[in-house]
Amino acid sequence: MLPRFVIEPMVRAALAEDIRSGDITTEATVPAGLTAEAEIIAKQAGILAGLDVAALAFALLDGEILFRCEARDGDAILPGQRVAFLSGRARSILTGERVALNFLQRLSGIATRTRRFVHQVAGTRATIVDTRKTTPGLRLLEKYAVRVGGGQNHRYALDDAILIKDNHIAAAGGIAEAVRRARARGGHTTVIEVETQSREQVEEALAAGAGIIMLDNMTPAAMRDAVALIAGRAVVEASGGINEDTVRAVAEAGVDLISVGALTHSVAALDLSLEIRQ
Amino acid sequence: MLPRFVIEPMVRAALAEDIRSGDITTEATVPAGLTAEAEIIAKQAGILAGLDVAALAFALLDGEILFRCEARDGDAILPGQRVAFLSGRARSILTGERVALNFLQRLSGIATRTRRFVHQVAGTRATIVDTRKTTPGLRLLEKYAVRVGGGQNHRYALDDAILIKDNHIAAAGGIAEAVRRARARGGHTTVIEVETQSREQVEEALAAGAGIIMLDNMTPAAMRDAVALIAGRAVVEASGGINEDTVRAVAEAGVDLISVGALTHSVAALDLSLEIRQ
Amino acid sequence: MLPRFVIEPMVRAALAEDIRSGDITTEATVPAGLTAEAEIIAKQAGILAGLDVAALAFALLDGEILFRCEARDGDAILPGQRVAFLSGRARSILTGERVALNFLQRLSGIATRTRRFVHQVAGTRATIVDTRKTTPGLRLLEKYAVRVGGGQNHRYALDDAILIKDNHIAAAGGIAEAVRRARARGGHTTVIEVETQSREQVEEALAAGAGIIMLDNMTPAAMRDAVALIAGRAVVEASGGINEDTVRAVAEAGVDLISVGALTHSVAALDLSLEIRQ
Amino acid sequence: MLPRFVIEPMVRAALAEDIRSGDITTEATVPAGLTAEAEIIAKQAGILAGLDVAALAFALLDGEILFRCEARDGDAILPGQRVAFLSGRARSILTGERVALNFLQRLSGIATRTRRFVHQVAGTRATIVDTRKTTPGLRLLEKYAVRVGGGQNHRYALDDAILIKDNHIAAAGGIAEAVRRARARGGHTTVIEVETQSREQVEEALAAGAGIIMLDNMTPAAMRDAVALIAGRAVVEASGGINEDTVRAVAEAGVDLISVGALTHSVAALDLSLEIRQ
Amino acid sequence: MLPRFVIEPMVRAALAEDIRSGDITTEATVPAGLTAEAEIIAKQAGILAGLDVAALAFALLDGEILFRCEARDGDAILPGQRVAFLSGRARSILTGERVALNFLQRLSGIATRTRRFVHQVAGTRATIVDTRKTTPGLRLLEKYAVRVGGGQNHRYALDDAILIKDNHIAAAGGIAEAVRRARARGGHTTVIEVETQSREQVEEALAAGAGIIMLDNMTPAAMRDAVALIAGRAVVEASGGINEDTVRAVAEAGVDLISVGALTHSVAALDLSLEIRQ
Amino acid sequence: MLPRFVIEPMVRAALAEDIRSGDITTEATVPAGLTAEAEIIAKQAGILAGLDVAALAFALLDGEILFRCEARDGDAILPGQRVAFLSGRARSILTGERVALNFLQRLSGIATRTRRFVHQVAGTRATIVDTRKTTPGLRLLEKYAVRVGGGQNHRYALDDAILIKDNHIAAAGGIAEAVRRARARGGHTTVIEVETQSREQVEEALAAGAGIIMLDNMTPAAMRDAVALIAGRAVVEASGGINEDTVRAVAEAGVDLISVGALTHSVAALDLSLEIRQ
Repeated sequence: MLPRFVIEPMVRAALAEDIRSGDITTEATVPAGLTAEAEIIAKQAGILAGLDVAALAFALLDGEILFRCEARDGDAILPGQRVAFLSGRARSILTGERVALNFLQRLSGIATRTRRFVHQVAGTRATIVDTRKTTPGLRLLEKYAVRVGGGQNHRYALDDAILIKDNHIAAAGGIAEAVRRARARGGHTTVIEVETQSREQVEEALAAGAGIIMLDNMTPAAMRDAVALIAGRAVVEASGGINEDTVRAVAEAGVDLISVGALTHSVAALDLSLEIRQ
Repeated sequence: MLPRFVIEPMVRAALAEDIRSGDITTEATVPAGLTAEAEIIAKQAGILAGLDVAALAFALLDGEILFRCEARDGDAILPGQRVAFLSGRARSILTGERVALNFLQRLSGIATRTRRFVHQVAGTRATIVDTRKTTPGLRLLEKYAVRVGGGQNHRYALDDAILIKDNHIAAAGGIAEAVRRARARGGHTTVIEVETQSREQVEEALAAGAGIIMLDNMTPAAMRDAVALIAGRAVVEASGGINEDTVRAVAEAGVDLISVGALTHSVAALDLSLEIRQ
Repeated sequence: MLPRFVIEPMVRAALAEDIRSGDITTEATVPAGLTAEAEIIAKQAGILAGLDVAALAFALLDGEILFRCEARDGDAILPGQRVAFLSGRARSILTGERVALNFLQRLSGIATRTRRFVHQVAGTRATIVDTRKTTPGLRLLEKYAVRVGGGQNHRYALDDAILIKDNHIAAAGGIAEAVRRARARGGHTTVIEVETQSREQVEEALAAGAGIIMLDNMTPAAMRDAVALIAGRAVVEASGGINEDTVRAVAEAGVDLISVGALTHSVAALDLSLEIRQ
Repeated sequence: MLPRFVIEPMVRAALAEDIRSGDITTEATVPAGLTAEAEIIAKQAGILAGLDVAALAFALLDGEILFRCEARDGDAILPGQRVAFLSGRARSILTGERVALNFLQRLSGIATRTRRFVHQVAGTRATIVDTRKTTPGLRLLEKYAVRVGGGQNHRYALDDAILIKDNHIAAAGGIAEAVRRARARGGHTTVIEVETQSREQVEEALAAGAGIIMLDNMTPAAMRDAVALIAGRAVVEASGGINEDTVRAVAEAGVDLISVGALTHSVAALDLSLEIRQ
Repeated sequence: MLPRFVIEPMVRAALAEDIRSGDITTEATVPAGLTAEAEIIAKQAGILAGLDVAALAFALLDGEILFRCEARDGDAILPGQRVAFLSGRARSILTGERVALNFLQRLSGIATRTRRFVHQVAGTRATIVDTRKTTPGLRLLEKYAVRVGGGQNHRYALDDAILIKDNHIAAAGGIAEAVRRARARGGHTTVIEVETQSREQVEEALAAGAGIIMLDNMTPAAMRDAVALIAGRAVVEASGGINEDTVRAVAEAGVDLISVGALTHSVAALDLSLEIRQ
Repeated sequence: MLPRFVIEPMVRAALAEDIRSGDITTEATVPAGLTAEAEIIAKQAGILAGLDVAALAFALLDGEILFRCEARDGDAILPGQRVAFLSGRARSILTGERVALNFLQRLSGIATRTRRFVHQVAGTRATIVDTRKTTPGLRLLEKYAVRVGGGQNHRYALDDAILIKDNHIAAAGGIAEAVRRARARGGHTTVIEVETQSREQVEEALAAGAGIIMLDNMTPAAMRDAVALIAGRAVVEASGGINEDTVRAVAEAGVDLISVGALTHSVAALDLSLEIRQ
């Protein structure tokens, strides 16, 4: 789904980092001409993400490896399920294994966690969105995994939306002035969001014409109140330390978006392994 | 502790990824000439790691930012503790915040988790070591964080030690032959490790002269037995799905090393935040 | 205004391209110790843009060159006006001259042309915006120059707004379906724009809830009609071969935005030169 | 004509700049499996240049796109003429369109303008040559386009010829000394050119043995005089603000070369468009 | 033998360095459609190394060149022997020739010289090893060539083994303390080597538990004495200005390893040439 | 002498290659706060080249190292002579030593060998020039070292001069036609050289108007004859396996240039070492 030229540099860098001057164990012990078949197996239930990235790791290492996907990104996979089949030079399969799995496990971990949040809010109007709390260098892949898990992406970078936080408000001398300046700077495709901590700030943001109003660290009751006040005149985002236990209550407060940093900043790799078929 | 030219490209890439064409919110709302003071505060107890990386993020963005460390990598920090003080252009502080924290929180998360494992094995002979299950592109930093947490590093890449696993053994036709080939390929600074699944394999690895013998997914009892068999003639490493609950029993089996993939593949960011002083 | 780490790689690449192994003329003829003063002078009236980029070219070449700006980006400058003063090693000034001017002249050319369009529409509600028809590799700088000239930026890349054109509509099977799919894919910060060629399409786009409606290659009369139909329910953009002669009529049709590819795809460098003071 | 490994990095960078994390409009609206045919059509008469670069943009994006050239670089093309035919995945064609055209239109614009200058001087001994006033990062391509248009290239960079200008002369203490130093520094493949502003300087340059003498901003009459004086003992180059109106008179003064910065610093893109065949 | 993605960037950089904007001689004189056959011939006896690198140079330049190896890395080749046969576009063969040979000749030169050292010590227990005195940027290739020649590799970089030299000993306050600190820093796969200048230092290094003891600039007699003292309790490396004349005596002193900087720092290219078959 | 931005990437790459994740020996044994003084000492007589490159290696590693040059590139240095003095952090000096010396020794080796050739031809009209037989990636530095040694540079790359060899002649159908095509392709700053193997070819090259005529592998007598025939109408270059023993006879044949591949393809590093002052 991601353009190859976007992911190729990341995969090349990962291969270089892991292999450096060569996989000396494999070179020493595995004959150059030996071929093998292998499979990537889930050891844990979860949502698959990153299979193309794993495939690319092998392709960059050895253009003749066959990598056949047997599941697709977004599939809910079960322990023991085979998600890919490989055949080709045994050396290439063994050398590429770790890099391929490092991507696949991390991205599947993100998709899996996102899906859990998405399930928690099922039936409400809320969409789960990510943040900029991503691993340095992997933002595009991690935001892709959030989408695979059923979430949506918040802005990618500091230049593709305006998000006015407390310090910006203080520097500008108030919400109204901050929004006015933001409008002058942003283009017509740039949405303006304002972070609010109180009902008063929500009112100011609304008056200033914010496109999105973030409710930062509010109680569900306060959020419900804000949602009522906003009454559809802006998109409403809840933010601030929301976890799997609290997300339902937040969603039921009627917000449109719930942003969750933990989708990407605290990720448990999904357990998948590559097994050579004897 | 890491050479600057090693971390600089990673930090530059992270800044480019986050800022792209510019922080349009800050540009719009914060006057160019405004200065500010800020502090990085722990919101959670843990082990600090990566303060130099955070400092470098600001330095690359604005050569005139003052960044004063008030704690050191490896310190056990407490909620509310200030770990750094910044002053300089308000714009630069706001623009650099997220990248600096993304590094600092992830590395501190790794150090914190490592320290917990280290505490679990206190008083035994076991050392906690990492694996190659690191985030693509960040291996050097993540292995640094493991050391900061009190762990040790396993090999960095496929070229700086030989680790003969089951597939290598099968391809070579047995442990003895695999080790013989490995010795011929490796240099005199290259340690040879053999992964074993049974007492028989331990005996073969020992006979072949392995420098390190990995006990893969064995029970504590089997490990204790292997340790007795090896009797100091090789370094003994335990591996395979070891977690905080099981690590103590493994350590008490008498192994020298316990490798834990979760130190780096499943990391909860340590909660730290940057706060502007009004 | 642009972050230094964004423009530095472009300037480095330009220096490498121009200097390669060294400025052999200057090395041969100018003594290493000779210092000089120089000034950058406008030879033509226009809008200045890119002075920081020019300054950086000299700074990267020789950290000890003094570069004093005597005008600011966005200033309307007159023939003969001095916009910068330099002093330092004569060799560095001569070697860096061409790269510095290549950036400065091109960016000033863009700002100058943008300003002319902006003047043409003065007093109307229309804003002049750029397109993706920029010089490969220089998009950030060129979009910056458009802002300096008084224009606004349309989207930066294919990922920061959705612009549904005729081929997308055909592939999706109609405007309504295309917008529906776009909404499912885009995030909450992603604006959806639809290109229309007829009043019927404007109606469909409006019904589908497009945030921006582009009127492609319509006559001023047709645009006026569309503006009336839309009646403020979406932002209206005029596009398609608009030039300095026709832009006023388009603006008077009441559109919000007028996008002009020629701002960046057909640029006459503004004439500026660097002169050594004897 | 340009080696692929020379242009590939530029095209990759342009794709990355334009597509970033993905063409979200196309992903949303165009089915992955849809194929299409398209053609690149000239909307304006001119000289084609850069068709291989356009082809490469598609090839890098999607190795399976068919791109069939129907004209060649250097051809004089007419409005409505088809210059290329494409077939393959509709998504790839739509996503690559803008980058391919940005290169093709700019390079064709340069070739077209060069050809006009070349026509102006037809029948004289003068060759039209470019300068170092090229777009940062695109010099190789732009100089290629000048050749396609029938011009010749002046030096590529500061290291492949010596061009002694007024400041070098002043620093060296005269033309004779400057040329002497230049000869000592340059290799045997390095031509030495001297810029002159008067008949006296032409005489000095000739006496010093310059291989090329540049007549800077002289009147046609002064040039004719200088050409007579030089009498074939050096190549003669005219330079300085020469445009399409004045170039004929300059050529008729008998110079060998006429260098024109505007070939590359002030370029109107040639109008070409990509059209999907329904 | 080296992974392609490791050598590809080096070969690309070398092609870019040599070809820059194009091989103008070949473009001018050789028709685009002309094909040719060529062969790479040894003009001198030696050990071949780098044939894959040479092949890659052509492959990167022109994917359709046939490059057939007729010898293998490590073969002892004779004057006049053909080591490769090429066929394809004449232009590509001529343009790629120099880069291919620059790699092949240098690597074969290293392998050849290594083999001479290896022959000198035949029948002893000594292995010839390289050092970090390699050409900047080419270390992986040069170390590969040493292995091809029959030598072994010492550490690749400052991070994959610990080598405690006199200045480290002085800074730490003695060998015992230096080794103690090194053990605390290094991982379990990190060998510790100590450089010694005297019998006393050898004793200290042995007592400290060094894995390798380097005898620096000792006489053969002193080495023999040290070997006896060490008695197999550590690997023994001889180092310091050893040349082809002195290496036999060093080997006969009973050391395990002899490190020779000249294998890589002073290399005579092996004479090979590419010849077009008429 | 070389622009810093030209050499900085090479030095950074060399540091990264040598240090990778860190100098673990130095980190372990040398206290962070320890300072030291050191000197770079010649162990062998020769011509110094590359001192700025060595200085840059330390500067990139640690901006606070003092590096004081005590000799200059081009100086004839004697065994025991100090060429630089350093002071600063002991760790940085030890970690940077090898990279700095690898550059300095190789470049000084080239300059030294060049100077020997230059001395051999003293009193003749011949200039010693280099070839494209340089180490991949280091051409700029190596050609600089040739100049430091008193030689001159032949062309840098395939695009900055035309050198018509036997295969080009054969493909074009003769010298006259090859030169004619070359003239049409080359710019006015591009010199045309023709390689000749016989008096007949010299005559053809002369008739065709070659700027430089290369005498390839001719005897001194044949060269003398060719020089007489050419009689100053073209620059004469001798080439082909010329060594220190044969170069004088070649020079006395009256040629203008003698190109020697061995200046760069077969280089003995000049022995220099860095010594910490106790």
